[in-house]
Amino acid sequence: MRTVRAFAPATVANVSCGFDILGFALNDLGDEVHLTSTDSNEVTIQQIIGDGGRLPLEVSKNTAGVAVLSFLKAVKLNFGVSIVLHKNLPLGSGMGSSAASAVAALIAINELTGVRLPKQDLLLHAMEAEGIACGSAHADNVAPSLLGGFILIRSYHPLDVIRVPLQATLFATLVHPHLELKTEDSRKILRPAISREESIQQSGNVAALMVGLMTSDYDLISRTLTDTIAEPTRKLFIPGFEAIQSEAKRVGALGAGISGSGPTIYALSKDYATAQHAGQVMASSFQQEGLKSDVIISKINPTGAMILD
Amino acid sequence: MRTVRAFAPATVANVSCGFDILGFALNDLGDEVHLTSTDSNEVTIQQIIGDGGRLPLEVSKNTAGVAVLSFLKAVKLNFGVSIVLHKNLPLGSGMGSSAASAVAALIAINELTGVRLPKQDLLLHAMEAEGIACGSAHADNVAPSLLGGFILIRSYHPLDVIRVPLQATLFATLVHPHLELKTEDSRKILRPAISREESIQQSGNVAALMVGLMTSDYDLISRTLTDTIAEPTRKLFIPGFEAIQSEAKRVGALGAGISGSGPTIYALSKDYATAQHAGQVMASSFQQEGLKSDVIISKINPTGAMILD
Repeated sequence: MRTVRAFAPATVANVSCGFDILGFALNDLGDEVHLTSTDSNEVTIQQIIGDGGRLPLEVSKNTAGVAVLSFLKAVKLNFGVSIVLHKNLPLGSGMGSSAASAVAALIAINELTGVRLPKQDLLLHAMEAEGIACGSAHADNVAPSLLGGFILIRSYHPLDVIRVPLQATLFATLVHPHLELKTEDSRKILRPAISREESIQQSGNVAALMVGLMTSDYDLISRTLTDTIAEPTRKLFIPGFEAIQSEAKRVGALGAGISGSGPTIYALSKDYATAQHAGQVMASSFQQEGLKSDVIISKINPTGAMILD
Repeated sequence: MRTVRAFAPATVANVSCGFDILGFALNDLGDEVHLTSTDSNEVTIQQIIGDGGRLPLEVSKNTAGVAVLSFLKAVKLNFGVSIVLHKNLPLGSGMGSSAASAVAALIAINELTGVRLPKQDLLLHAMEAEGIACGSAHADNVAPSLLGGFILIRSYHPLDVIRVPLQATLFATLVHPHLELKTEDSRKILRPAISREESIQQSGNVAALMVGLMTSDYDLISRTLTDTIAEPTRKLFIPGFEAIQSEAKRVGALGAGISGSGPTIYALSKDYATAQHAGQVMASSFQQEGLKSDVIISKINPTGAMILD
């Protein structure tokens, strides 16, 4: 019996103009998975800590469990393992909670079995697990949680994941109101078609965001952080969204938008003091809507998921 | 009486996934405008050479004329000037013919009047002239013709033009079949709405193209050069388009697509020999459709329009 502990960070997916194709990883905040080898040839979830008993212990319904099963099936191993999942991320928060659990489990099983595939090769298993949680196999949380940094999903068919060579120094502010949204519900309200003009705007912004990130052009980054696809409908689920967004910008944040499918709102700033100030005014705006919130400040995590032992 | 001669290069607009937001400039090939000051306070077009008598000599209907009028109005000058326009670019070819005339005229009038605005400030006048030629004031030909390089139009409202810090060395092949398309007609067949999935694909590709251009990742550039917005309908106007596109790739071009609104097809390659080979096989494919064509090979022009004297 051997135990491997792994950590996978929280992530901000979508990133305004990068709807469905961009995401970045945070420091410190994330889920932990402890895997212990057993003699049974079975995968079981022994315990989930921090979810208030809300997540399924059934392996095939839990993102950590599905990730482990998908990995073992692909590498054709019969391997007994017992999972302990430490949920440090709130559920349905838009901070990549289900992705972090899946990624931490994958990093751990990859180590525990001694298979040691390159991180990139774990991505498809993490996406399969995401499919269980979100109703669709998206990569914009799992990829940054696994790989770290600012990640661009160029294509899903075939999967083409690119690490943006980030030059800009960025501080993320996450303000998480005590309110829960399900990714699955948030996807249902997306418009199936958008106008050509809106699509061109989004393309122009996300292309320019790449240039800004790679040349540390903070003014340019700031001009790009809008979303014509998801924000117009999804913001209706977040009380006070527009006021919070403009408050963040008023105190100097480069921009703000919905983190993942919400209700967490992210802001990006070029220094820590601004990121902190943005957090204060954003939390205070949520307060005016009668919502308590948690504020998290983090640089972009360059390494992603890792083994803790 | 003083004469100023100016040159503005041909351009490739759209660049596949960069529909309406990307363009680049070519070397050598382009239009020339000669402006001579007169005592009359009037703007006149004295002569157009190379258009076979097809372009209007009426100042307000000619892109070079409109550009000069727009400039003089903005700087509040009464100035007499006589225009001679040397059309070296074929009309309706998709190589930015109308844009090159407007830009050359602007560079010349800016010099002749001694006003000497920065190039960026001439852009709106060039766009006004483009509106006359194309039915809509697009910037993806005029901006690269004016400024050179690989240009990204982040936004039209407000206008935000970004020069992509190009690291990759690229050779463009243009194959111009003897067939004429009007930009105005080509715009009419564009779909007004597209699916969310298609929009996301386009965004992913154009964002990744920026990363590829800025890191000399030729494989990545190659994977991005597709277009989900305009190509599916516009290709129907270009006989043999799909065969020509795949022929270019077969001999090693990074990708190929419609230049501007066509019928010219562009390809990008990472060396001269491949660009030349692509030109041969593309021209030969047009030949099989019964169309003669001209082949142009050029590096990306880094400087754009310039005064020739």
